[in-house]
Amino acid sequence: MKYIDKDTIEDIALGAALLGTGGGGDPYVGKLMALQAIEEHGPVQLIDPEDVPDDALIVPTAMMGAPTVLIEKIPSGEEIFRAFEGLKSYLNRDIYATVPIEAGGVNSMIPIAVAAQLGLPLIDCDGMGRAFPELQMVTYHLYDISATPMMIADEKGNVLMLKTIDNVWTERLARNATVEMGASVMISIYPMTGKELKKAAIRNIVTFSAKIGKAIRNSRSSNKNPVDVCLEATGGIELFRGKITDVSRKTEGGFVRGEALLEGVEDYSGQNMKVQFQNENLIAIKNGKVVATVPDLICIVNLETAMPVTTERLKYGSRVAVLGIPCDEKWRTPRGIETVGPRYFGYDVDYVPVKELARK
Amino acid sequence: MKYIDKDTIEDIALGAALLGTGGGGDPYVGKLMALQAIEEHGPVQLIDPEDVPDDALIVPTAMMGAPTVLIEKIPSGEEIFRAFEGLKSYLNRDIYATVPIEAGGVNSMIPIAVAAQLGLPLIDCDGMGRAFPELQMVTYHLYDISATPMMIADEKGNVLMLKTIDNVWTERLARNATVEMGASVMISIYPMTGKELKKAAIRNIVTFSAKIGKAIRNSRSSNKNPVDVCLEATGGIELFRGKITDVSRKTEGGFVRGEALLEGVEDYSGQNMKVQFQNENLIAIKNGKVVATVPDLICIVNLETAMPVTTERLKYGSRVAVLGIPCDEKWRTPRGIETVGPRYFGYDVDYVPVKELARK
Repeated sequence: MKYIDKDTIEDIALGAALLGTGGGGDPYVGKLMALQAIEEHGPVQLIDPEDVPDDALIVPTAMMGAPTVLIEKIPSGEEIFRAFEGLKSYLNRDIYATVPIEAGGVNSMIPIAVAAQLGLPLIDCDGMGRAFPELQMVTYHLYDISATPMMIADEKGNVLMLKTIDNVWTERLARNATVEMGASVMISIYPMTGKELKKAAIRNIVTFSAKIGKAIRNSRSSNKNPVDVCLEATGGIELFRGKITDVSRKTEGGFVRGEALLEGVEDYSGQNMKVQFQNENLIAIKNGKVVATVPDLICIVNLETAMPVTTERLKYGSRVAVLGIPCDEKWRTPRGIETVGPRYFGYDVDYVPVKELARK
Repeated sequence: MKYIDKDTIEDIALGAALLGTGGGGDPYVGKLMALQAIEEHGPVQLIDPEDVPDDALIVPTAMMGAPTVLIEKIPSGEEIFRAFEGLKSYLNRDIYATVPIEAGGVNSMIPIAVAAQLGLPLIDCDGMGRAFPELQMVTYHLYDISATPMMIADEKGNVLMLKTIDNVWTERLARNATVEMGASVMISIYPMTGKELKKAAIRNIVTFSAKIGKAIRNSRSSNKNPVDVCLEATGGIELFRGKITDVSRKTEGGFVRGEALLEGVEDYSGQNMKVQFQNENLIAIKNGKVVATVPDLICIVNLETAMPVTTERLKYGSRVAVLGIPCDEKWRTPRGIETVGPRYFGYDVDYVPVKELARK
C-alpha cells in the first residue's frame, strides 16, 4: 500500500480501533474526519520510516482527553491544524510528515486527515503499537525524546504551548489543561527527527491496522468465525467469551475510568471476567485470576462480528469476546514495564506476558 | 526621578504594597529580587509613556498565584526571564521596555528586576493603579487589548504559552495551570504597542508608589501621625481603626480567600469591621454597613507605622487602620465596574465611590 484512499480508511480505522484496546477514540468519529479530508484533498502517501531523511522534522498528531467526550463534542476540524501549524511556526521549520502517536479509532485517523489537508506524507509507524492513556506512554519516551514543545488546541480557538522539564510534567500540565478546555482537545507533540523516529517508533502500524481491519471485514462474507480471523490476524489468544453484566464508568481527571463485568457463555459458561480500564483496558481477571495486563493488549470485540468495542461503547447485555494480544518487544524492557506495566497503574502484580499466563 | 536605584526601591515597594490593597505580594520578597538585580546590573531607567514610540513592543511582567505561597516558594530568579524571553522569541521581535501589570509588593518589583537584568527601561504606568486578583482585571482589557500570547514559567523550568480567544479564557486556563505548577509562577502577558499602552495604562504609578513609600518612611522620623501622612499622600480617607480579632484564610483555586474581623479602638471603640478578600481586599463592612468596595482601594496598615499589611500577613491581635482610596477613573466606567465591581465578586451591592459612601 503506497497510498491511503477512501477504501483503506475503513480498514485502518477498524484495525486500529481493535489495537486501541478500548481507547484511542471511536472508529466512526475518526473515519468521518479522515474520509472528509481525503475526499477534499485526495489520497495520502504512506511512507516507510526508512524513507524518511535523518534530519527531517516529524510531528505526531492526535486527540487527547476522554473519548466519551469526543463522541458528543465533535471537533470543528480547525483545531488540529491550529495545533500542527502552531508547532511549525514555533519551531520555525517545515514539517516533513506526520505520524500517529497511537493506534485507535480516532487517533489513527487524525494524522491521515492532517496529512491529506496539508499534502504531507504519513509514516507507517506509531509510538505505542496500541493505545495508552498518558502522554509519556510512548516508545519515544523510552528513547528519551522530549514530548515538548507541544501544542494543544480546543474547538473554541484557544491554543496552548508547553515546554516542560520532562515528559511526566508534560502529561501533568497537558492533562490539566485538557480538562479545563473541555476534556477533549487536539494536540501536536513529540516533534522529532527522522533519525529519532527510526530508532524509537513501532513499525508498520498503519499497514498492520489495515490488514486486521480487512480481515475482520472480509470474515463477514466468508464462512470463517470473525473472532478466529481476528486472532489469526493479530497473533492473539482468546481470553474469554461472555455477556456484559455490569459496566461502571466515570470521567475524572480527563480520563474515563471504570470496569466491565462479564458472565461466561459457550465454553466459558459458569465463569466470569472483570476488565478494568483507564481509557484503555488495563487488566483482565478471569475467575479471580489475572490473565492479561498492560502492556499486552486486552481487546473486547463483538462475539458475532469481531467489531472492536471501545470502553465508551461497552453496554450491558452485549455478547463479546476478550482477546489478549502480545505487545511490542519495546514495551517488555525494564523501562517499558516501568512506564506502562501494571504497577504503574496501581496493580500489585508483576507483568507476565499474556501467552505465558495462558500456559500456566 | 529618571533612574530607579537601590534607595528608591524601598519606597516603591512600600508604596506599591499599600496600593496592592492586601495583594500583589509581600514587599520584603519583592524588594530582595529587585535589589539583587540592581546591585548586579545597575539602576533602571524610568521613562514616561509619552516617550515610548507608538510601534514599540511593550511586555508587562508579573508573578501570578497565591502570594501566601510565594513567601515559602521563593522564585529561582530564572523563571521570569524564561517567561519574558520566551515571549520575545515567540513574537520574534525585540521588546522595547517592560512595565508592571499592577501595584503590589512583589509585582511592582519584578518588572524592575527584569529591566535591570536585561538593560531595558521601565515605563511609569501599570494596568490597575492598584492590584486585582484576575488577569482580565486590567485597564488594558477595557481597551480590548489581548492578554495573549502569554508565557507562564515555573521555578522548575516548565514553560507554557497561551493564545486564547478572549481574556477571560486566558484567566481560566492560566489560573488552572498556575495551580498545577505549584500556585505561584512568573508570567509575561498583554504584549502591546506603545500606542496601545498610552491609551490604556494608568499613569505615574511607579512615581506615585515611591512618593507614598517615602512619605510613610519619613513619617517615622517626623512628629506627624504615619496614618495621616499616608492619607495625605494617597488622597484616601480613614474607614476604621481597630484590632484584628479573627482571620480566616484559605488557598483555593490559585487564590487566597478569606476575611478579617476587627474590633474598634480609639474613636471606633464599640464598633466593628469586616474586610473580605480574594488576594486583594474586596469589601469593607462597618457595623453591618458597606463602607467601601472594589474597585476603590481598601488598604489595611499598621496603626502605629502605617506599614501596609498584606492579606497573608493579617494576624490576630494586630492594631491596624483601614483606609479607603478612590480608584482611577478608568475603573468607574460601566465596563470598568462590570469587570471589577462588587457584583463581579458575588456581592449583591452596587458600586458607590468610597467618598460618597462616607458622606452618607
